[in-house]
Amino acid sequence: MAQTLVLQSDFGTADGAVSAMYGVALGVSPSLRICDLTHEIPQYDIWEASYRLIQTLSYWPQGTVFVSVVDPGVGTKRRSIAAQTSNGRYIVTPDNGTLTHIKRMVGLDAVRIIDESVNRLAGSSESYTFYGRDVYVYTGARLAAGVIDFEGVGPEADAEHVVELPVIEASFDGESVHGTIDVLDVRFGSLWTNIPRKEFERLGVGYGQRVEVTIENGTRMLYKNFLAFARSFADVYVGEPLVYANSLDCMAVAINQGSFAAAYGIGTGVNWKISLRKAPRLVYE
Amino acid sequence: MAQTLVLQSDFGTADGAVSAMYGVALGVSPSLRICDLTHEIPQYDIWEASYRLIQTLSYWPQGTVFVSVVDPGVGTKRRSIAAQTSNGRYIVTPDNGTLTHIKRMVGLDAVRIIDESVNRLAGSSESYTFYGRDVYVYTGARLAAGVIDFEGVGPEADAEHVVELPVIEASFDGESVHGTIDVLDVRFGSLWTNIPRKEFERLGVGYGQRVEVTIENGTRMLYKNFLAFARSFADVYVGEPLVYANSLDCMAVAINQGSFAAAYGIGTGVNWKISLRKAPRLVYE
Amino acid sequence: MAQTLVLQSDFGTADGAVSAMYGVALGVSPSLRICDLTHEIPQYDIWEASYRLIQTLSYWPQGTVFVSVVDPGVGTKRRSIAAQTSNGRYIVTPDNGTLTHIKRMVGLDAVRIIDESVNRLAGSSESYTFYGRDVYVYTGARLAAGVIDFEGVGPEADAEHVVELPVIEASFDGESVHGTIDVLDVRFGSLWTNIPRKEFERLGVGYGQRVEVTIENGTRMLYKNFLAFARSFADVYVGEPLVYANSLDCMAVAINQGSFAAAYGIGTGVNWKISLRKAPRLVYE
Repeated sequence: MAQTLVLQSDFGTADGAVSAMYGVALGVSPSLRICDLTHEIPQYDIWEASYRLIQTLSYWPQGTVFVSVVDPGVGTKRRSIAAQTSNGRYIVTPDNGTLTHIKRMVGLDAVRIIDESVNRLAGSSESYTFYGRDVYVYTGARLAAGVIDFEGVGPEADAEHVVELPVIEASFDGESVHGTIDVLDVRFGSLWTNIPRKEFERLGVGYGQRVEVTIENGTRMLYKNFLAFARSFADVYVGEPLVYANSLDCMAVAINQGSFAAAYGIGTGVNWKISLRKAPRLVYE
Repeated sequence: MAQTLVLQSDFGTADGAVSAMYGVALGVSPSLRICDLTHEIPQYDIWEASYRLIQTLSYWPQGTVFVSVVDPGVGTKRRSIAAQTSNGRYIVTPDNGTLTHIKRMVGLDAVRIIDESVNRLAGSSESYTFYGRDVYVYTGARLAAGVIDFEGVGPEADAEHVVELPVIEASFDGESVHGTIDVLDVRFGSLWTNIPRKEFERLGVGYGQRVEVTIENGTRMLYKNFLAFARSFADVYVGEPLVYANSLDCMAVAINQGSFAAAYGIGTGVNWKISLRKAPRLVYE
Repeated sequence: MAQTLVLQSDFGTADGAVSAMYGVALGVSPSLRICDLTHEIPQYDIWEASYRLIQTLSYWPQGTVFVSVVDPGVGTKRRSIAAQTSNGRYIVTPDNGTLTHIKRMVGLDAVRIIDESVNRLAGSSESYTFYGRDVYVYTGARLAAGVIDFEGVGPEADAEHVVELPVIEASFDGESVHGTIDVLDVRFGSLWTNIPRKEFERLGVGYGQRVEVTIENGTRMLYKNFLAFARSFADVYVGEPLVYANSLDCMAVAINQGSFAAAYGIGTGVNWKISLRKAPRLVYE
């Protein structure tokens, strides 16, 4: 049975690039189902591409084929691969770190290098810049439609060697958990950290209790305050900040009906450090 | 036969939230057709969510299942419901005013409260913030795919009690029709009012004749001028303002190939009042 | 067999206009496949609509039906047509220049004028502003679904007379190729010119060699520098500008991982002139 093809890129949808990818995929199989993850990955931001995959992959049925094209190294020797994840999905992508989170948190069962002598749109040989359309989507569509099986992608490669971006693990020092701000919940300006709920639970903070949140970037401290740990936004006032567990079961910081990122000028990446500790008991008299 | 599932939210498409909803729906039924209304509702803007539903619902085939997730009260006691409209469509939504226009202008035949002991994605119990994906889309997909019928949503509720936002009706005082600016035609900056064409016709203004348009917000008057009542934009010069009947058969104000909203700083909501009256006959000598 | 329907407009996706078009198309045939080219054409920009069609059309399977609605003349006497292209696709559009590039570069085999007494959504007669939904998409959906064949669109018209926007051809003066900047690769800020690779090859510039690029607008020169002619972005440093052949096999100018258009304030249209010539040999000692 044909599987769904899910596309991600940093192409945006304002010009014809994504539409051409759809056309190529339907040329492979007119009955293929094609959906989008997003095409609004910030240009060349491999980290965010990797994050959006871990955020969504497991919600799609087993067998789904993802194609992710965020490819600042197009034209270099970076490899073009397809990976089979340990939970039974497929990802076709340049081997440039796009699989960082999936490899660490889900696992890769097998990896194949795309054989472009077979898996490349006919007549496309002069175009050096459109790997996304002519190789990645074409190969993904063939895999999803069953024109080729996973072995048909090309020669096997060692999953261990798939490129990973540097990741800093959350840590607990006996009093605080320390982590980084991985990504924003774009539309709502919430901060998504790399601190798993399990790690946070070592602080012994219950719902409704207070957490001391500290955010630093290099030598600058940008935020330090006591926030409620809430089940959901509705547990705090409109305009009040909160700490909560997000849909990935990691800790997040937000303002109810406001944008935390905009309010305090917070960004993302390994230089954005966040620490959480149980707030001291305060008695006002 | 499976029905189409149509999704609306204020999530945007830049991160994985909408994609995860698609994945969950396909997990319910791999052959389901899923389309979008829009995911660019301004954050937490229930009024606009309600308006986009009335603007589009009747263009979709009978039986279509809409899921609308603009949910500032997520985590509160607000109810989660599915409604059957009097013209045979379904809407799954938090009961927070999202059905305001549909209830008033189309009518609700029946309402069911979602039984989350049945209609909730398995294994999602720890996530308090993702009702959109785990409850609303999951329930909508089951309804569209025929996994459950409308009764299978949960216990019946009284359609009369479905939450409505305050609405001000257009009125005619013998000389002018008075209304409010409900919403913008976003890309073109046109003002869409709540004044039905039928009400406007009481002014006796024919195509090509002039209308006096007054726009006020509280104590401020922001616009007063004589505009042509036109069949379409092409009846006036490029850059000329006009009054016309929009696709909802309500009166609208625009600038041909310009943005009326941007030109005069006009917004939307019940505080934005607009009055139309037949322009006095002017004789230039 | 039903063909795919591909929609393009300047409507954006923030309000319900595109969604209503989808609903109307599904009302024609519940099993129709509907995809988007883009809905982010700048408002009223017929030139860009024409360009996005030539950019994508041939990547879609034969028989695909495109509907393009960028229609500043809605309500005027401009004709509504469907065209059959020489490579076997169909385009339903106002006859306002939207077919400029397709007519010149692909060719039109036949043109029909839409007979609105047949091909118009029932009950839509009062709406003068929504041709996109009630006529173009309705007709396109009927054609894609096989409800009508091409003759069923309406009476035949002369393909020669289809409206074209003025186009300036690239030219070679023995030393330089001269052209215009047609369009931007929106997300990446690259300049796409009307200079075919074949024309450029007359300069005798090989990969890695330098090209003198001059950009002028009227009497202003905005850019003059020596750039590498590169196979792809990866052949130059990050931040370095380059000349390359784009996916349409025309010459383009970009900055690797930057935006050339933003860097130098470059726009598009027939007033934006670009010249390329082989750089003189430089010897640094």
